[in-house]
Amino acid sequence: MKKLAIGVDIGGINTAFGLVDENGDLYAESVISTKKYPHFDDYAAYVKELCESMRALADSLSFDYELMGIGIGAPNANYHQGTIEMPANLWKFRENEKNPDETRRIFHIAHDIAACFGESKIRVTNDANAATIGEMIYGNAKGMRDFIMVTLGTGLGSGFVANGEMIYGHDGFAGELGHVIVERGGRQCGCGRYGCLETYVSATGIKRTAFELMARMSTPSKLRSIAYDDFDASMISAAAEQGDPIAKEAFRFTGEMLGRALADVVTITSPEAIFLFGGLAKANKLLFEPTQWYMEENMLSVFKNKVKLQPSGIQGKNAAILGASALIWQEQPK
Amino acid sequence: MKKLAIGVDIGGINTAFGLVDENGDLYAESVISTKKYPHFDDYAAYVKELCESMRALADSLSFDYELMGIGIGAPNANYHQGTIEMPANLWKFRENEKNPDETRRIFHIAHDIAACFGESKIRVTNDANAATIGEMIYGNAKGMRDFIMVTLGTGLGSGFVANGEMIYGHDGFAGELGHVIVERGGRQCGCGRYGCLETYVSATGIKRTAFELMARMSTPSKLRSIAYDDFDASMISAAAEQGDPIAKEAFRFTGEMLGRALADVVTITSPEAIFLFGGLAKANKLLFEPTQWYMEENMLSVFKNKVKLQPSGIQGKNAAILGASALIWQEQPK
Repeated sequence: MKKLAIGVDIGGINTAFGLVDENGDLYAESVISTKKYPHFDDYAAYVKELCESMRALADSLSFDYELMGIGIGAPNANYHQGTIEMPANLWKFRENEKNPDETRRIFHIAHDIAACFGESKIRVTNDANAATIGEMIYGNAKGMRDFIMVTLGTGLGSGFVANGEMIYGHDGFAGELGHVIVERGGRQCGCGRYGCLETYVSATGIKRTAFELMARMSTPSKLRSIAYDDFDASMISAAAEQGDPIAKEAFRFTGEMLGRALADVVTITSPEAIFLFGGLAKANKLLFEPTQWYMEENMLSVFKNKVKLQPSGIQGKNAAILGASALIWQEQPK
Repeated sequence: MKKLAIGVDIGGINTAFGLVDENGDLYAESVISTKKYPHFDDYAAYVKELCESMRALADSLSFDYELMGIGIGAPNANYHQGTIEMPANLWKFRENEKNPDETRRIFHIAHDIAACFGESKIRVTNDANAATIGEMIYGNAKGMRDFIMVTLGTGLGSGFVANGEMIYGHDGFAGELGHVIVERGGRQCGCGRYGCLETYVSATGIKRTAFELMARMSTPSKLRSIAYDDFDASMISAAAEQGDPIAKEAFRFTGEMLGRALADVVTITSPEAIFLFGGLAKANKLLFEPTQWYMEENMLSVFKNKVKLQPSGIQGKNAAILGASALIWQEQPK
């Protein structure tokens, strides 16, 4: 009997579903628009429907199976509570926005789905933690007991594994490296504060850096012909590969900010390796070289030249689904 | 049959020994000078002797006992290897100081003592980690699965507990919060870098702050009559309690630096509580009030008003011995 899990990756734009086995092999996939459902109840009903259809798909497979559970990766997800709490880009519409207590928007996604899949376990965690567990189960962190995963998307997510276990923390929200403040009074962050790491190191961060550099430097650059709204981070990689000085400097600076932050965080958890995942990590040498250099340059001597900096082993379009499904294979003793 | 452990706290000046039971009751104590032994081999021989005499003392007790092990807290101790590696203030004398590889001074303390106490287990960790386990076994962190301990002495040490386990990290050196860089190009640190948290938040740190403030401000202060070499942090607490403006500002600034750093580190491990231990923590409100305020002020919203900031429950002169002995009651699955 094959063991299967459903992985659900909830993003601000789309929600992706996948039917996965313990080896990370994918039997079915599906995508719905998250944006189309401004009200959570409608959205949850549709998610249940999609999970049902995944189960129906599993029934049509040529082998016997047991559905072990549904793993959900989502922004601001609380592992302990099975909730999604105050997500910045999801299900905005809600009354009483003026009262801070009533605007504490908490969505009980695990509970709502469990009503339908009572026999399976439902696990919820944030997308970066899901990717971290994915790295541990299917990727380059196999067998490692202490490592850090950094996911570079629109923002910067992270997951910390110590003693072979994911650190969820008391509250279920641990691992928000993107919101460590690296520059007091620095760039404005979506979290309402200033100078968070993700305002420098992420697809959005490097774009902001490129625009700052165009303002500060007078070097010619092909990036100068593109408007802010038309700009995305992949244009910086492409330009840097062609030797564009502003684009190259943007990567160097991004690596400097990331390398410094990693050197700091190494002193706390002393990982064996740090994995970089996501769009920016695909820039390879452009990002890894300065990051590695600044990390070592800023490292406390006892950790120097010991911590591996590597690309993720689950890089690819199904990583988010794999990560979410991996929640089901990893039981946390809590 | 009572279970006993020997706790050994190795400091730069003295080494303290204690015979402790599982409740933290102390049956015997002893202190030797660390400084008198510039060569490690002489020192280790004397430590073995003292441990032997602790065992002899145990024999003279009125009850049957089993000696469960020797727990050692020391600077730069490696839990996995049972070594003390490149300690800044211990056993300096060594040939070939110019070659960085040969000056990588590694002292195999667990191995040397094990030869003598083969039947008991020997555990070594850094003094801050030992205090952390002490807090978990005997102090205010009883029953907590996720917390942070911050020890404020000459420097700033720390220990992180997640999922109920001490984080030693891959290398055995995790938990060096004192060496997170909080001010790029800031104060010179003993580690060779600049701007580490402990150069601001520690007995030495607040003294440096007081001197900086005397230089920057023209406010009268009784601290102005004391030379740098005659100065210690307790004079700042005493002056602050009498309303001295420089001393009060020194505590506010120290709380600001610590509060900000704690807000950052909360995003990584999401602790239930943070405990402050050591000399500076004895200043109570003077330190706790600004630290709490700046921590909350800088906290990511999802963690706001959730993390307790509390004094250590093992504050007192035997805390270091208790912490070291607690290593024996806490088995780490690694």
